Amino acid sequence: MKKRPFKDHEAEHFRFEVSGDGRVATVRLDRPERKNPLTFDSYAELRDLFRDLAHAEDVRAVVLTGAGGNFCSGGDVFEIIEPLTKMAMPELLAFTRMTGDVVKAMRKCPQPIVAAVDGVCAGAGAILAMASDLRLATPRAKTAFLFTRVGLAGADMGACGILPRIIGQGRAAELLFTGRAMGAEEGHAWGFHNRIVEPESLEAEATALARSLADGPWFAHGMTKTMLNQEWAMGIDELIESEAQAQAICMATNDFRRAFEAFAAKEKPAFKGD
Amino acid sequence: MKKRPFKDHEAEHFRFEVSGDGRVATVRLDRPERKNPLTFDSYAELRDLFRDLAHAEDVRAVVLTGAGGNFCSGGDVFEIIEPLTKMAMPELLAFTRMTGDVVKAMRKCPQPIVAAVDGVCAGAGAILAMASDLRLATPRAKTAFLFTRVGLAGADMGACGILPRIIGQGRAAELLFTGRAMGAEEGHAWGFHNRIVEPESLEAEATALARSLADGPWFAHGMTKTMLNQEWAMGIDELIESEAQAQAICMATNDFRRAFEAFAAKEKPAFKGD
Amino acid sequence: MKKRPFKDHEAEHFRFEVSGDGRVATVRLDRPERKNPLTFDSYAELRDLFRDLAHAEDVRAVVLTGAGGNFCSGGDVFEIIEPLTKMAMPELLAFTRMTGDVVKAMRKCPQPIVAAVDGVCAGAGAILAMASDLRLATPRAKTAFLFTRVGLAGADMGACGILPRIIGQGRAAELLFTGRAMGAEEGHAWGFHNRIVEPESLEAEATALARSLADGPWFAHGMTKTMLNQEWAMGIDELIESEAQAQAICMATNDFRRAFEAFAAKEKPAFKGD
Repeated sequence: MKKRPFKDHEAEHFRFEVSGDGRVATVRLDRPERKNPLTFDSYAELRDLFRDLAHAEDVRAVVLTGAGGNFCSGGDVFEIIEPLTKMAMPELLAFTRMTGDVVKAMRKCPQPIVAAVDGVCAGAGAILAMASDLRLATPRAKTAFLFTRVGLAGADMGACGILPRIIGQGRAAELLFTGRAMGAEEGHAWGFHNRIVEPESLEAEATALARSLADGPWFAHGMTKTMLNQEWAMGIDELIESEAQAQAICMATNDFRRAFEAFAAKEKPAFKGD
Repeated sequence: MKKRPFKDHEAEHFRFEVSGDGRVATVRLDRPERKNPLTFDSYAELRDLFRDLAHAEDVRAVVLTGAGGNFCSGGDVFEIIEPLTKMAMPELLAFTRMTGDVVKAMRKCPQPIVAAVDGVCAGAGAILAMASDLRLATPRAKTAFLFTRVGLAGADMGACGILPRIIGQGRAAELLFTGRAMGAEEGHAWGFHNRIVEPESLEAEATALARSLADGPWFAHGMTKTMLNQEWAMGIDELIESEAQAQAICMATNDFRRAFEAFAAKEKPAFKGD
Repeated sequence: MKKRPFKDHEAEHFRFEVSGDGRVATVRLDRPERKNPLTFDSYAELRDLFRDLAHAEDVRAVVLTGAGGNFCSGGDVFEIIEPLTKMAMPELLAFTRMTGDVVKAMRKCPQPIVAAVDGVCAGAGAILAMASDLRLATPRAKTAFLFTRVGLAGADMGACGILPRIIGQGRAAELLFTGRAMGAEEGHAWGFHNRIVEPESLEAEATALARSLADGPWFAHGMTKTMLNQEWAMGIDELIESEAQAQAICMATNDFRRAFEAFAAKEKPAFKGD
């Protein structure tokens, strides 16, 4: 299948940078004066980017972050909320489907996504963190699923289904009904954040984690991600059979043989993704 | 559709009180000398009440609590357990379906239910807490799924399916196999209790939480609750599409517009549920 | 249905011991000089043993442990990994299905399985702990789902589906993508381990827990285990109806009546499993 490099890809509504060897991409929301809100255009471009990354020939892991000490303040009140209050139903559904498609694309691209969360992480911003695979946060990160504050349901972009699987049904209900912010330590204790790091090392640690995954068996990582999604609502028998098939595929790769040979030779394996 | 007020509703087998404006209802199990056990009659009345609340024109949130420093001691040994040991299968199934229907009705009414748990919270009492949306507890609350102590399975009123989603599969297995009590701090650390409060402020805090939800966008809260239930066993793609539809419905409400207008005017929104 | 005693059962590739009264069996992986790795033969024998235990007339609970201060180091690199790198697809799938069948058999036997985890608990060893019902660990236990370290996916023997339900989706993703070890305290805080105990008392405590379950209402315990599995991917309405049926069955047993009569007489019930 045709693949393409993302090394020279440029994004229009956020910043997109790729490491020298092409393996680690960084998506940086970049309207720091407004705490990096999303717009109709940036939603659409995020959706398209994560969809296209499924066909990357270089990028193996993604860091998702925000500029200027905040992650993302969510859908802008005047650029998004106000227009929505005036739309007819088909337009509304087109919008909620588009935002949902961002989460679908993040879950479906094979690259693990590491969210690096500092400061404000609110509304659709909290969803972007939730939809990532791993989350690092600073002590001052505040994550708020605040849809209720604008008169909406907590059922936004998958939150009622996905958040309970990360932090438990009772805690998710509290956050979604009240819209209150989850602090960083709380988020860590609840399993939302994987690690708390200081602001000055946040990006370095997130990039190092993405790098360690990018240099690992990325075909297998893509299968891990696929199966974490795929088994979401399967019964136990069915999910075990699915993994038997998925792992048999991985055992038929050259990367598996390379890993064994490197182990036997006490060397570091060099994975090639085939 | 026809709705009716619950302001003057009187319950027969427990106490039912509604706030002056009709928005917050309190269900209080009230046989304190026996630690508020359930009977065949009170099960049936709880089922009917929560079913009927789906058609309330006033009540927007519910507090569920017990009188006299205990929440609920579960099915009474002599009023329930003994008769059950003498029933034929169709009667037994009618009973377990009735108790299951209490949980179904609690999950299906649109009002968020805040359990205020003090002292003993055992057997079917633990289930009532589990089936609520949010749980506040005092330091002396003891929650025990003790069905095993009377020779039964932990599979009672949904516990084997619902409890693991709140506290995790391993902890739920321990509580359901052994019947041991979960202490308040443990329940808080595990995500069962949302907050620990002192006994003297338990009811005030639970009522304040219910009040804040009742004064919020209650139509949207009802949708949040519906979707938390609805997406329980959906795949990721399906749950995201379901939320796209659910949130589009909420965006078509006047309450959404009211919330935006209040935000723009720096005022507090007044929700009307339309 | 024909049942058989396991009192005199002897295992070939691990040790199998049964308590004097036949109720508690101990499965001990026993190649301590290699930290108790698994081989093709021991996988197959574990699968067959747990399948056969469904028909035990004596054994009511199982302790799963390892000899010499370690639980299990997983599939042996030279006895398992190397041969796998040379197999054709049908053989690979036969292998992954066999290992998956170990987990299926562990989940399907009616006896609760208590894993007693000390030291190394890695790869397929971590899966054996995960597939148990309850887990006790020592402070030095290290549990690593390290499939990624040999170039494979985290999707092994059900890990991508089962581990997230025990410790949450975010923590499971971290362990499965990175292969890093989960420490004992971490595993306890996350709900993987039910209790931390000192190495010298590990086996005694695990056996005491298994004993307390074996002396309890074992028919009902088997139903609890069945329903914890069965309701894995059911909707709320369906799981409540399933429990209504399951619990009605338990209420029709003599053990239920015995438990009530013992309670009324202030005696300890003697369960007979009928």
